[in-house]
Amino acid sequence: MHIQEIRVTPIALADPPLLNAAGLHAPYALRTIVEIVTNDGIYGLGEVPGSADTTAALEAAAEVLIGQDPFQLNAIYRGLVERFGVDDAQRHLVAWEHRRIVHVYSAIEVACFDIMGKATGRPVCDLLGGRVRDRVDYSAYLFYKYEGAGGELGFGTDPQATGWAAARQRAALDPDGIVAQAQAMCREFGFKSIKLKGGVFPPDHEVATILALRDALGPGTPLRLDPNAVWKVETAIASGRMLEGVLEYYEDPVRGQEAMATVRRALNIPLATNMATTAFEHIPGSVRLGSEDIILSDHHHWGGFRATVELARICRTFGRGLSMHSNSHAGISLAAMTHLAAALPNLAYACDTHYPWQSDEVLVKGRLKFEDGALPVPTGPGLGVELDRTKLAELHESYLCCGLTRRDDQVEMQKMQPGWVFQATRW
Amino acid sequence: MHIQEIRVTPIALADPPLLNAAGLHAPYALRTIVEIVTNDGIYGLGEVPGSADTTAALEAAAEVLIGQDPFQLNAIYRGLVERFGVDDAQRHLVAWEHRRIVHVYSAIEVACFDIMGKATGRPVCDLLGGRVRDRVDYSAYLFYKYEGAGGELGFGTDPQATGWAAARQRAALDPDGIVAQAQAMCREFGFKSIKLKGGVFPPDHEVATILALRDALGPGTPLRLDPNAVWKVETAIASGRMLEGVLEYYEDPVRGQEAMATVRRALNIPLATNMATTAFEHIPGSVRLGSEDIILSDHHHWGGFRATVELARICRTFGRGLSMHSNSHAGISLAAMTHLAAALPNLAYACDTHYPWQSDEVLVKGRLKFEDGALPVPTGPGLGVELDRTKLAELHESYLCCGLTRRDDQVEMQKMQPGWVFQATRW
Repeated sequence: MHIQEIRVTPIALADPPLLNAAGLHAPYALRTIVEIVTNDGIYGLGEVPGSADTTAALEAAAEVLIGQDPFQLNAIYRGLVERFGVDDAQRHLVAWEHRRIVHVYSAIEVACFDIMGKATGRPVCDLLGGRVRDRVDYSAYLFYKYEGAGGELGFGTDPQATGWAAARQRAALDPDGIVAQAQAMCREFGFKSIKLKGGVFPPDHEVATILALRDALGPGTPLRLDPNAVWKVETAIASGRMLEGVLEYYEDPVRGQEAMATVRRALNIPLATNMATTAFEHIPGSVRLGSEDIILSDHHHWGGFRATVELARICRTFGRGLSMHSNSHAGISLAAMTHLAAALPNLAYACDTHYPWQSDEVLVKGRLKFEDGALPVPTGPGLGVELDRTKLAELHESYLCCGLTRRDDQVEMQKMQPGWVFQATRW
Repeated sequence: MHIQEIRVTPIALADPPLLNAAGLHAPYALRTIVEIVTNDGIYGLGEVPGSADTTAALEAAAEVLIGQDPFQLNAIYRGLVERFGVDDAQRHLVAWEHRRIVHVYSAIEVACFDIMGKATGRPVCDLLGGRVRDRVDYSAYLFYKYEGAGGELGFGTDPQATGWAAARQRAALDPDGIVAQAQAMCREFGFKSIKLKGGVFPPDHEVATILALRDALGPGTPLRLDPNAVWKVETAIASGRMLEGVLEYYEDPVRGQEAMATVRRALNIPLATNMATTAFEHIPGSVRLGSEDIILSDHHHWGGFRATVELARICRTFGRGLSMHSNSHAGISLAAMTHLAAALPNLAYACDTHYPWQSDEVLVKGRLKFEDGALPVPTGPGLGVELDRTKLAELHESYLCCGLTRRDDQVEMQKMQPGWVFQATRW
């Protein structure tokens, strides 16, 4: 068996105007879909955060992949490193959203696992040591947001929408709005854990939102707050004091391992990160400084399934908890996350997902369905999902029409608030 | 597919009277062979260091395994931990040769990988990320020894023996004897790297042996010395000073991570270990203290193939080199080591093997053959070796006849030197 073709398709998914420390989500979230086709007609799917750069790199990766056996992941990785000239030894130099080799390899590795699963008649999780759970819990991922639906509607809304589709359109800019969002999302999907994307409003406003969620949902609900590292150390400590006993974990309140370690020492709340410790090269610093209690994995950003299994071992070895991060994504990523999560013995938290915020899908049979806040682990071969090429073509058309070539939340924010600029430390 | 049967067979391999810090090898080395048979008639092979305790534990493991899918390694591990009540969190409490759960799981995991490979038509290394090399280099493993062949001959010799079979019988108690042993072994197998098991004679004698090897084989030959931790720190430093620029690495000159770190700081030679850092629980101490430069993996003792791949990632993450340890073993272990080594990108040293010292084999087609110091990675499905059940029965008979139920090098040594006792620190 060898790889005969790689098809790379940038797509755009309708995305609502979600606020975060970097600005505002555009009406479309970009993803890149990879299909790898073998000489015996098996195809494997991968999905990664989209950008023109990632698409071009994946297209250029064809010269490494064509003729290669999809089981030869080590050789493929080495070939990509040779082609792109970026070894993981350099990954500490750039933020994870810019690590080209990691995104490229992650997309390809997932597609190769899909092929391996189909070729062997096994779900992907079985090629990762097998499932330790039959259902993977996800969390409700709450956002402050402006009114708007995203996609063709831009920041407009669809008056015909009902249920969660209507709730999703509503603005949520204060505690009441977020509580209503949480209730609507949990009603629809059954999520048991809740994460609030912070770093948007002054810290007191966000602390008040968390406390409102606690009051509305009961003290037993696991709550997380993620200010995306734009708080000063003293702000994070002062805010954190009000959240001790309330938060399940406190995610990246401050920037960098040193600052995280300082906050962690000052508080009695588990600290989590997907910003301070985001590559294997950061692990020695994490261990030396004690910068967090919990690492948020993400196979798109850590270098694929196998790298994440290895990260999980490192977490066990050094007493770190393990959770899972997400970006806006479609169902191929969700299926991949679910297989991976199923095979990680020490994954102890509900995984993040942006999936409820998107409505488009590239899968035959449409969108994956949460049951009681969880996804059942697919039992069919490979990832267990099939590509709907008509939908793919439509979403590629959206990509071409929307004019976006990379994510830039600052530019989107400036359309709403002229002159707004990102600040690495805001409060 | 599910596991229908597990067959556990203790065997004894003829073994020469090899000297080491713990005493003397008995005329037989014990191994336990595991066959796992599935309902569709596939069988998988595993091999681990033998003892009555390991055999009993593997037999008891049947209640966990029967009915289980061999791909469900995480579930099998969890089941074994539940059955034996020893989690890897406790592995730091016992020396690695006594870690029952690790030996049991390692044997079973290798057999399951053999099954997975056969079921999918893939060599085992392809299920570990694929080969990064087509040949795995091994090292010449030299021992001070008494005259003797081992096995039925005990400490006698076979006068008909020729070539390496004759050389293997000869005593080697001084530098000249070891140089002759090295030359005979390298002539026969083509090894390029050389390891001397030390900790047997006073340090000056062993240093002189290394220097004699350097003189006889040329300064370009990678040489290693392993005193098995019986030297004092000051002895190890004084001896090490004479070996700077001579040794490729200095393996476990002293006992424990603190002492290793002290020796490492004092010398300009890479320090290696399979005694100070031997479990994931030891990694934090290794990182904190800087106890070694190189970790010797061993899938039998670290918990199987996947654990070793994870160890390899830890070594890359923390700037440790990676090599591979061995005990006396037969061809199932050698095939497993070769597949694993083929899939470890950062394995940078020739692997240890005792294989030339054994002459028995349980494989159809007999003993695996080194070519120019290396083994070609098997390309057939699974481990790529088949069990010769006639040979297995014979070697089981040897086990029953030899009367040994566990390795005890002190008892063997006392037969030669009455009153000899092991000393944890001898010089």
